[in-house]
Amino acid sequence: MKFYEKGERWDGRALWYDPVEKSLKMIDQRALPDKIKIISCSDYESVADAIKNMVVRGAPAIGAAAMWGMVLAASDGEDIAHAAEVLRSSRPTAYDLFFAVEMIESAIEGENPDSIVDTAIEIAASYEDDLIERCRKIGIAGSSLIQDGYGILTHCNAGALATIDYGTALSPIRIAHNTGTKLFVYVDETRPWLQGSRLTAWELEGEGIPYTIIADNAAGYYMWKGDIDMVITGADRICRNGDAANKIGTYEKAVLARENGIPFYIAAPLSTYDPDTQKGRDIVIENRDPREVLEFAGKRIAPEGANAMNPAFDIIPAKYISAYITEYGIYSPEEISDAFD
Amino acid sequence: MKFYEKGERWDGRALWYDPVEKSLKMIDQRALPDKIKIISCSDYESVADAIKNMVVRGAPAIGAAAMWGMVLAASDGEDIAHAAEVLRSSRPTAYDLFFAVEMIESAIEGENPDSIVDTAIEIAASYEDDLIERCRKIGIAGSSLIQDGYGILTHCNAGALATIDYGTALSPIRIAHNTGTKLFVYVDETRPWLQGSRLTAWELEGEGIPYTIIADNAAGYYMWKGDIDMVITGADRICRNGDAANKIGTYEKAVLARENGIPFYIAAPLSTYDPDTQKGRDIVIENRDPREVLEFAGKRIAPEGANAMNPAFDIIPAKYISAYITEYGIYSPEEISDAFD
Repeated sequence: MKFYEKGERWDGRALWYDPVEKSLKMIDQRALPDKIKIISCSDYESVADAIKNMVVRGAPAIGAAAMWGMVLAASDGEDIAHAAEVLRSSRPTAYDLFFAVEMIESAIEGENPDSIVDTAIEIAASYEDDLIERCRKIGIAGSSLIQDGYGILTHCNAGALATIDYGTALSPIRIAHNTGTKLFVYVDETRPWLQGSRLTAWELEGEGIPYTIIADNAAGYYMWKGDIDMVITGADRICRNGDAANKIGTYEKAVLARENGIPFYIAAPLSTYDPDTQKGRDIVIENRDPREVLEFAGKRIAPEGANAMNPAFDIIPAKYISAYITEYGIYSPEEISDAFD
Repeated sequence: MKFYEKGERWDGRALWYDPVEKSLKMIDQRALPDKIKIISCSDYESVADAIKNMVVRGAPAIGAAAMWGMVLAASDGEDIAHAAEVLRSSRPTAYDLFFAVEMIESAIEGENPDSIVDTAIEIAASYEDDLIERCRKIGIAGSSLIQDGYGILTHCNAGALATIDYGTALSPIRIAHNTGTKLFVYVDETRPWLQGSRLTAWELEGEGIPYTIIADNAAGYYMWKGDIDMVITGADRICRNGDAANKIGTYEKAVLARENGIPFYIAAPLSTYDPDTQKGRDIVIENRDPREVLEFAGKRIAPEGANAMNPAFDIIPAKYISAYITEYGIYSPEEISDAFD
């Protein structure tokens, strides 16, 4: 991915482990697009806080961050089961988080105490490399769906920031653009947290991909007008029956896409698939602080006394999903559970 | 309607003519909910500016303001046809605006110059009284659709601020609440201008009606969850075939309501009906300043170099509209043109 600040662009990653300092470095996604601020976490508690406070966000990046949190816990001689519990509870909806923590936990269980840290580092590093490679493959698979001249809607940020590099929903767009396909991206601003106007726009600006930001309310209008040819989003969890959970508002875009005969794709690595969740309605939706809706950049926008409800995710029933774009290829929602098995 | 500031409530109107000062007074809707600021316009140009800059908004209130603008033009001995043109072009989508300006123009055409101003004042004042009475009747008709325990979604502000008093979409809610029906309102914040979180919430807070603000993205989720029993919005224009134009995002809510088996109502006086517009696709959609999307309270939220597209309205095709709630009763979209004739 490209880092972009004041017209300058350079290569970077959304997070990385510094073995000398024994700390996890992350680009602070709350500070974007104003400035590039790097946060350094030297214990698992600060990693859990960074996940909770959305310094890092996006299911796969959260998974990677949590793994490095486990590495730090092992390195500091902390109670591993407790650290795992604290990290798991930092964001209740992200399945990758549980998957990642579990991966380290089971790998170091019964391991010789001398080699626990090395094992954890090895697993976290290979998870990262593997994640980036999976995202690249998602991009290759998905780019085959993008035709010259396409208008593409995306919601939230399923970009490199969410997956260390490439992204999930943005990976097909990056790869299609880099191989010469002409395309134009409609970026939902994605209230309340504005992942679209702050993060996705920042990534696309960095890559030089043509785009516009729109209010979430305008996506349906551009579909109705015939300007949008496909919708691609990421997912936070995929269920056995092909339903998905993703950023609040994704359900709205999926329904509108189907109503307008526009294909709706979810791009996600298979680690997002949770065989233990049968269907979308089984997922507990995280409700975040009402102030995210009532305030804006610290300024209150609602009248005194007003309250807000702030669900972070919604459920996209399988019937609205044209296909899943994965690192193994493109699958219909009906095929996704077989693909995983 | 109630004015509400720092816990105090008092009765007021969204705009009124001061015959002593010869000026139109308006509550500045841009300053709400932070403070109640009254703007005074003493010539038609400043009325046109106030409409353009959204000091006053909402199709019927814009119509009333434009009428008083015509009164001021007549009173100042201005070229009436030119004043009409300037006022008409202040917001291109609002049909009530054209209707209101035309009403004064044709009434004073050929009138004795001595009585032009009195005639214009009389017409504007009776338009206002009539508008408020129509809104009250919309409220009575619409309140019959609201059952005890209903969750009601509304989008934008179709309240007293938009119609001087009562409102269109909010009138049935006000009247049902005041006659003892238990209800709960989901207020879409309505990006980019936040009419929901700033204005509708302010009106509901003033009236003591239970509500919550939600991000526009969350409305679909609450429909899917089964918490919303009906949707009521206003309209900026109603076409012969039953299509309507309303605030950007209304189309999304209408599609989502139908998909979830929830009735979707548009509450509007019949002056919103435009017999000269055959269908929604004939309406030219106003594109507003991209900065409304790129900035927030003067602070830029998007990266340097980013652009935005900012359509102010969208079209709700007749098939998604369960019924129109008017001052003459409730009509299906198919019946609306006969109702008008």
